Amino acid sequence: MARFGDRIGMLRNDFVGAGLDGFVITHLPNLRYMIGFIGTAGAAVVTPDRCTLVVDFRYATAAREILASHPDGLVDLVLVDRTYDETLTDLLHRPEASRIGIEGSSMTVTRFERLSTLLAGLDRRGVSGAVSLVATDRVVERRSAVKDAFEIRTLREAARRLSHVARGVGAFLREGRSELAVAADIDAAIRDAGFERPAFDTIVASGVNSARPHARPGPRTLEAGDGVVLDFGGIYDGYCVDLTRTLHIGRPAPELLRLAAAVREAHAAAIAAVRPGARPSAIDAAARDVLAGHGLADAFGHGTGHGLGLEVHEDPRISKLPGAFPDDPVVAGMVFTIEPGAYVDGLGGVRIEDDVLVTGEGCDLLTDVPIEG
Amino acid sequence: MARFGDRIGMLRNDFVGAGLDGFVITHLPNLRYMIGFIGTAGAAVVTPDRCTLVVDFRYATAAREILASHPDGLVDLVLVDRTYDETLTDLLHRPEASRIGIEGSSMTVTRFERLSTLLAGLDRRGVSGAVSLVATDRVVERRSAVKDAFEIRTLREAARRLSHVARGVGAFLREGRSELAVAADIDAAIRDAGFERPAFDTIVASGVNSARPHARPGPRTLEAGDGVVLDFGGIYDGYCVDLTRTLHIGRPAPELLRLAAAVREAHAAAIAAVRPGARPSAIDAAARDVLAGHGLADAFGHGTGHGLGLEVHEDPRISKLPGAFPDDPVVAGMVFTIEPGAYVDGLGGVRIEDDVLVTGEGCDLLTDVPIEG
Repeated sequence: MARFGDRIGMLRNDFVGAGLDGFVITHLPNLRYMIGFIGTAGAAVVTPDRCTLVVDFRYATAAREILASHPDGLVDLVLVDRTYDETLTDLLHRPEASRIGIEGSSMTVTRFERLSTLLAGLDRRGVSGAVSLVATDRVVERRSAVKDAFEIRTLREAARRLSHVARGVGAFLREGRSELAVAADIDAAIRDAGFERPAFDTIVASGVNSARPHARPGPRTLEAGDGVVLDFGGIYDGYCVDLTRTLHIGRPAPELLRLAAAVREAHAAAIAAVRPGARPSAIDAAARDVLAGHGLADAFGHGTGHGLGLEVHEDPRISKLPGAFPDDPVVAGMVFTIEPGAYVDGLGGVRIEDDVLVTGEGCDLLTDVPIEG
Repeated sequence: MARFGDRIGMLRNDFVGAGLDGFVITHLPNLRYMIGFIGTAGAAVVTPDRCTLVVDFRYATAAREILASHPDGLVDLVLVDRTYDETLTDLLHRPEASRIGIEGSSMTVTRFERLSTLLAGLDRRGVSGAVSLVATDRVVERRSAVKDAFEIRTLREAARRLSHVARGVGAFLREGRSELAVAADIDAAIRDAGFERPAFDTIVASGVNSARPHARPGPRTLEAGDGVVLDFGGIYDGYCVDLTRTLHIGRPAPELLRLAAAVREAHAAAIAAVRPGARPSAIDAAARDVLAGHGLADAFGHGTGHGLGLEVHEDPRISKLPGAFPDDPVVAGMVFTIEPGAYVDGLGGVRIEDDVLVTGEGCDLLTDVPIEG
């Protein structure tokens, strides 16, 4: 489990470099990434010389087992006595003034205010120097976006299994079956393939419903001529993969086939644009320009992709500028989706999604499923 | 759909009463509660005379359909052009200074800072009076904790279906089967019972694993003498229900049976304590005191229950004082779990969980499943 020591070491470099005396991890996927702890609650306080996992009674045994698998002294354990925030406050109190980073992109405003109030109380009682909490943005996420060898192996295996599921979904589609029945079959196939569970609510959007990129499966039954967008994912050993194919029932309308051909071309163009140093906005533009060339600029209203890892939507975000996310160039080891689509109200929609790994020169396609149409 | 009008009206009363000129909803379950919109992104701006749903391209069609089902003029729609926060900023800009409530217990620190910066920019450019964002705490949640007639019907039906699943889980337990196989059977039974999906990761904790309240199912196979904690839930028409039974394989050790008897007594005592006006801490104490009387004070390390609704963990929290949550008395219409447990390392654990509705005089048990032991 040397990787946890490496990760904690990187975090220490990052926060010391940012002028901080310590760092509090409260985002649970980051706690899993950094320490290996899996739970619905938990936190960690990392200082230059100590890393303390904080869990409550429910997770005491699980936490002790994880710590036993780490090198001695890497992580120690503190159990919550009253509340998490009071325990964190106790751990953060130091004789001298200090600046502690918190995870601003996941900690809530209420929790930030409560922690600040508790720390100010310690300060007033003279038991601690002033502790100021500093909101940081995606410090751990920037590191975890670049996968290590263990993670790449896991994601590769997960994508292989999801591809196997995807090659079988055509058998679930028949005239008269409902979207809900197809979604249930896909979810069962995901579990049968060895996934812990689906990574998100499976999308089965047929006919006119397919014009909604995020439709929820409903009672609509499949009809001849339908396009059916099937978007599904799985969690394998904690890691998420995600895949979409659009299949047709019988003979689709020529307009739908033209949509499918344009999206296929956009999908190929985006994948061809993935290489170390490419900006997310440039990868996005590769897909978007193709669709615009087919007169479908307004039909593609979402981003081209998102990072995959312990979360199903993580950095990098492959989207156009200006957006809510930074546009830092992608680097080798990043894994993300490429999923352009085109949606026309009253006609239907098409989306094609694969998962790619950025390599030294370009990218590897982790998913491997024929594209229909 | 009159209920959405009622809810928006209540929210207006609440925020005006708190001295606010408007309110931004960003917590997605609250958006569903208030407007009926279901998605993975979205927001709403509510002022005394307007309620605007903000969604992106992916949800445009779904949002239009929901709005069409509302009374005319109740909610209007704005589509995100660049980013959600820029659209929200545009909607919040007014000629006069204003105080706008945000949901502090779900909005992140980073988003709060970004929105504040955007609003300050408008202010500097002179296009708006100063807009200050005020972190509020569970304004919508305090209302949604008290269920209306529609919600109670839905939760009652959900609990009936989950009870049906629970009465069948004994058939999944056999010596030699793994926890994972049992969990898969339970998940399939939840779907077969008409649930959209499990409400959380199903817990199957056998033998010594059952000493961990939140164990994840693993490869361990069931053995004669095991106690098995089975904790599972389902989402039905958006509403979550949650149930636990602890079953035994063959003849359990006498110590385990004593644990089971104590938890059963604690469970009955807590249910007997539920009535309008009872404080959550008093309901919790009813269970906790019974366990303490059996020398099991340290064996019960979690809270006695949590609210159920569009989220699987919501207000009220039935826990001891002092805790992280307020201890306001429960009122008729609240629905929550009662789930005491006792866990002894090396021996095992027992938890019994049912869902109750607070009524005019006491409570109704929504779940209905025999208790073994």
